[in-house]
Amino acid sequence: MRAVIMRGAGNPVVTEVPDPQIEAPTDATIRIDAACVCGSDLWPYRGLEDAENLRMGHEYVGHVVEVGAEVSTLTVGDYVVGSFVISCGECEICRAGYQSRCRHASFVHGGIGTQAEYARIPFADGTLVALPGKPDDAYIPSLLAASDVLGTGWFAADAAGAAAGKTIAVVGDGAVGLMGVLGAREMGAERIIISSRHPQRQALAREFGATDVIEERGDDAAERIRELTDGLGAHGTVEAVGTQESMMQAIASTRPGGKVGYVGVSHGVEIPGIDLFFSLLHLHGGPAPVRRYLPDLIERILSDQITPGRVFDRELSLDEAPEAYRAMDQREAVKVLLRP
Amino acid sequence: MRAVIMRGAGNPVVTEVPDPQIEAPTDATIRIDAACVCGSDLWPYRGLEDAENLRMGHEYVGHVVEVGAEVSTLTVGDYVVGSFVISCGECEICRAGYQSRCRHASFVHGGIGTQAEYARIPFADGTLVALPGKPDDAYIPSLLAASDVLGTGWFAADAAGAAAGKTIAVVGDGAVGLMGVLGAREMGAERIIISSRHPQRQALAREFGATDVIEERGDDAAERIRELTDGLGAHGTVEAVGTQESMMQAIASTRPGGKVGYVGVSHGVEIPGIDLFFSLLHLHGGPAPVRRYLPDLIERILSDQITPGRVFDRELSLDEAPEAYRAMDQREAVKVLLRP
Repeated sequence: MRAVIMRGAGNPVVTEVPDPQIEAPTDATIRIDAACVCGSDLWPYRGLEDAENLRMGHEYVGHVVEVGAEVSTLTVGDYVVGSFVISCGECEICRAGYQSRCRHASFVHGGIGTQAEYARIPFADGTLVALPGKPDDAYIPSLLAASDVLGTGWFAADAAGAAAGKTIAVVGDGAVGLMGVLGAREMGAERIIISSRHPQRQALAREFGATDVIEERGDDAAERIRELTDGLGAHGTVEAVGTQESMMQAIASTRPGGKVGYVGVSHGVEIPGIDLFFSLLHLHGGPAPVRRYLPDLIERILSDQITPGRVFDRELSLDEAPEAYRAMDQREAVKVLLRP
Repeated sequence: MRAVIMRGAGNPVVTEVPDPQIEAPTDATIRIDAACVCGSDLWPYRGLEDAENLRMGHEYVGHVVEVGAEVSTLTVGDYVVGSFVISCGECEICRAGYQSRCRHASFVHGGIGTQAEYARIPFADGTLVALPGKPDDAYIPSLLAASDVLGTGWFAADAAGAAAGKTIAVVGDGAVGLMGVLGAREMGAERIIISSRHPQRQALAREFGATDVIEERGDDAAERIRELTDGLGAHGTVEAVGTQESMMQAIASTRPGGKVGYVGVSHGVEIPGIDLFFSLLHLHGGPAPVRRYLPDLIERILSDQITPGRVFDRELSLDEAPEAYRAMDQREAVKVLLRP
């Protein structure tokens, strides 16, 4: 089959690899119907993470081709959405709702290889959710988004305490930040303030529920948010970038006792303990336990309550994956859908 | 009146200062019945914080001497306990339960000067809680503890998610760590593991509810805690020291998705973002909003449910304050009560 392999920074190639096989009785193999490029795929692409011979891709929808002997919730032909992190669903960590740190399944650098025609999904029962049937094509982008960016933005909005009457700030206008806006709106936030200077992303943010778009960054953004909130700062802030500046912007934008939900992979970030101490904030984040939210997200999508798939602004074939990486790296595209 | 002033590192002196007066209509002045030396008073004592001419002390019980014209919940003669941080009680931050970052009252370096015969308490209605009457002398140490160390340890246990069935680790065997043990026990924690090598503190920890005392520190302590918890780590950890090692020990001791409640004033601590990210932890702490917990704590003390005053192992007169600092600095005393 064909699959995307990162052969060093800046060099994703589409190449032939062996078809995946069932290796453990808890595995399933799936035919990928749609995959995509994630903002986090750009870290190795940009040489900021190891990029040697990485099988890429961790977002996916598709149907089940084969199941191992112990898989009990899925049958061949089921249409499935899965979390970007493998989880057994049964350990104490999974049962507590932190499936992205499942004790039996490790986080795979680069991903589980879903920028491909087929994929092997370990712990299929704990990772995949079967849909009621094959969804209409119009739902594919939104279901695909649920696999990571929607679930990740949703987790961040939840960790930021989004709820009725709350003001939520969002740092980052990439796909995850935009999904944080959508999550905050669905959770009832009264006011949602996003930092963005990009007209297309500003428009998407408003469509997803942003009430205020500001162009400031860093301390200036925090200052502007305090001006907009009677001097206090937001009740909660979604951090969806992963740099020192974005993390400090999130902390500075939030009122004392408020909440920061951070999902940008923190590259080189050092949080000064004394600043965090006096901020009295709640800080929660990390790799999102998307699997916790997935059944609810699927229901909202299939009932037309949310259309997160609007975040995809380009669709390419799997063979065009290198162009997808280039367009996202250059910020020409917010998020690119790939059809194997 | 007499008061303790820190005249440079290592040099607390008891000296005459003017009696406090009502300065604002929301002030009260109180006669201090008991005060004490806090672990945080040792930072300037040790020269790790500015220590020039600081009025010291922020823990206190006593009775009201005079009230300003706008004070409505207190009258002259009321016996009161107050939080170590001034709070108006009415702003949005106070009403949300984060009184230690009240927008109208600032954190006073060194404290509000309660190692003295009298003190002026700004925003008296929002800061002080009146008792039903003058308490029996036996309750004074416990009520005094409520003013900071008990309330602070309680907040940390709460932030660490202490509850029925939970395993809580405690880093730090000082008064606050010991109060974290007590708080975790009162919140129903099933297992409470504290790091301590000091026989007297180990005994106190067991008295307050510790089920396991370990002697390891740092990564070894975290490893030991994982051994004790089926490889997972504690559900939550109280950090009550404030150093890089103690913060990293707390993070490493806690299972993925767990909670760290930190109240050690973070001196020079830098939290590596990438480690925190993959830990998937909840991190919450800072100057404890003791005022939120104070009415409940007072009730538990006066109903003999808890005896936090056991944390005081020495009592001296105000004039002997320098000896109190010395004994705590040398870890000869856990906590010293001062009688003006």
